[in-house]
Amino acid sequence: MPVLSPIVNPTTADFRSVARALTLVENDLPGAEALLRGLQFNEQVPVVGITGPPGAGKSTLVNALIEELLKDGNKVAVLAIDPTSPFNYGSLLGDRIRMASHFNHPDVFIRSLATRGSLGGLSAKTIELADVLRASGFDYVLIETVGVGQSEIEIAGLADITLLMLVPESGDEIQNIKSGVMEIADVYIINKADRDGADTYYNTLKKLVQQQHAETPVIKTVASQGQGMAELAHHIKQHAPQINQRRALLLADKAWSLIRERRMSDVDKKKLRQYIAEAMQEPDFNLYKFILDFEGSISDLE
Amino acid sequence: MPVLSPIVNPTTADFRSVARALTLVENDLPGAEALLRGLQFNEQVPVVGITGPPGAGKSTLVNALIEELLKDGNKVAVLAIDPTSPFNYGSLLGDRIRMASHFNHPDVFIRSLATRGSLGGLSAKTIELADVLRASGFDYVLIETVGVGQSEIEIAGLADITLLMLVPESGDEIQNIKSGVMEIADVYIINKADRDGADTYYNTLKKLVQQQHAETPVIKTVASQGQGMAELAHHIKQHAPQINQRRALLLADKAWSLIRERRMSDVDKKKLRQYIAEAMQEPDFNLYKFILDFEGSISDLE
Repeated sequence: MPVLSPIVNPTTADFRSVARALTLVENDLPGAEALLRGLQFNEQVPVVGITGPPGAGKSTLVNALIEELLKDGNKVAVLAIDPTSPFNYGSLLGDRIRMASHFNHPDVFIRSLATRGSLGGLSAKTIELADVLRASGFDYVLIETVGVGQSEIEIAGLADITLLMLVPESGDEIQNIKSGVMEIADVYIINKADRDGADTYYNTLKKLVQQQHAETPVIKTVASQGQGMAELAHHIKQHAPQINQRRALLLADKAWSLIRERRMSDVDKKKLRQYIAEAMQEPDFNLYKFILDFEGSISDLE
Repeated sequence: MPVLSPIVNPTTADFRSVARALTLVENDLPGAEALLRGLQFNEQVPVVGITGPPGAGKSTLVNALIEELLKDGNKVAVLAIDPTSPFNYGSLLGDRIRMASHFNHPDVFIRSLATRGSLGGLSAKTIELADVLRASGFDYVLIETVGVGQSEIEIAGLADITLLMLVPESGDEIQNIKSGVMEIADVYIINKADRDGADTYYNTLKKLVQQQHAETPVIKTVASQGQGMAELAHHIKQHAPQINQRRALLLADKAWSLIRERRMSDVDKKKLRQYIAEAMQEPDFNLYKFILDFEGSISDLE
């Protein structure tokens, strides 16, 4: 088997090779599988997920965090995930442009991804792309996702550390976040902490965390001014030793997603729609009979 | 093949049989598959998804909507989906109790479901359970989900009509909802419309909908007092003719989820975790090699 190695030498980041490797994997081009199987998994490189509602300032934070990590001579890779929603296109494009201040830095690699597949979801592809980056000589891989819909849950199944960004709001708002998203956070970030009400928000959240007997750190940042970044970087580094404890669970979840995606790779969603559109015209249409027939026709083809 | 028919006679709802059929399907007991393949798909019965943030008053709205639909002699089934989060357990239990006012009504069937499988997700099981209810003589199937994480997105892939509940908040809040969740709504419901700021909220949302050239209705309700329910029921009925336009797409998505779940049914998540925990001890561990080996060992067993 030919060993493809567009993967860079870990000491001298060759971004063109990294970009090529990502493209190969993103588009399932020939050689992608061999490349993935040849990756040298560096367990020490954390994948940091950054999520939160639109407007929380995620890109600004990523920007400021890069700045902070560069101070220690780190190499940083960023995957920025755009939701499929056309409504978001404009504003996210803006975010991308804002983040561009690091686009030409020799130690920073940024790749913007359009999510594919299901509504709002991160595809299993993201796992593969993050793994390519982890094996390409970076010290940190940051993944920025817009925290709407399932992406904020999925990021937790993908990242070693999940940063949940929040913006000071009413106490009512805090009640709202507690019930689904809080479990995914490894670090809470209250951004725009110079806003009115930030301290109240901070205290309420702190109390909530204590009530749940959790020890999740809550930190205040003003990302646009780089405030709080040293503390954030400290927490990310502190978290690193926990990576191995969680890794088996996380890897099992990743393996599950990847197996699922592979097993579905022969099902063409468009064709499925066509077949369904025809089948549902039948008066005795039944979805479960249809699925059996569909699966039968696929195995006939093989 | 023996034809099981615990499905009730559409004219005389036998709730014990319905409950038994749901249990059969929910737990994949012998006969579940035959039952599903024997369902008489009634394309006229809409599956109505109700979602929104915790505290929006979903259960109260479901309660009031049931009341409204009963006036016209409808039979109503409700699937109430609990997230897996232990944090929510208390409050949801409260919701279930509140909804209990209809538990003994002869035309109302309520089933509470703990979600299983992935974090916060609605499983493909929900599709099957809703299909059982659609074929059991009900006129409406309501599915209530807590809109955190992926469930609010998934409900749209499952329901014929998705009602998105909102509570009057600041304008900033409206900006937050617009970017991921708005696409899934067929009807916006501003609940607790007697609160301060409700009219402003209503107008802002209306404007936003117009800006997007959408025609999604926005209605105000005070569910706790039954206000707005006639209008809501009207919109749900109005939506019914659109069901067929959307049905092929919706059915294809359902088929996709069901096929995916079936194809993964031989992968035991717990065992996968065990295997991974062992494999990752190896110095040359690589996730993609592991997956190939894992898939190989499964096909060896067959």
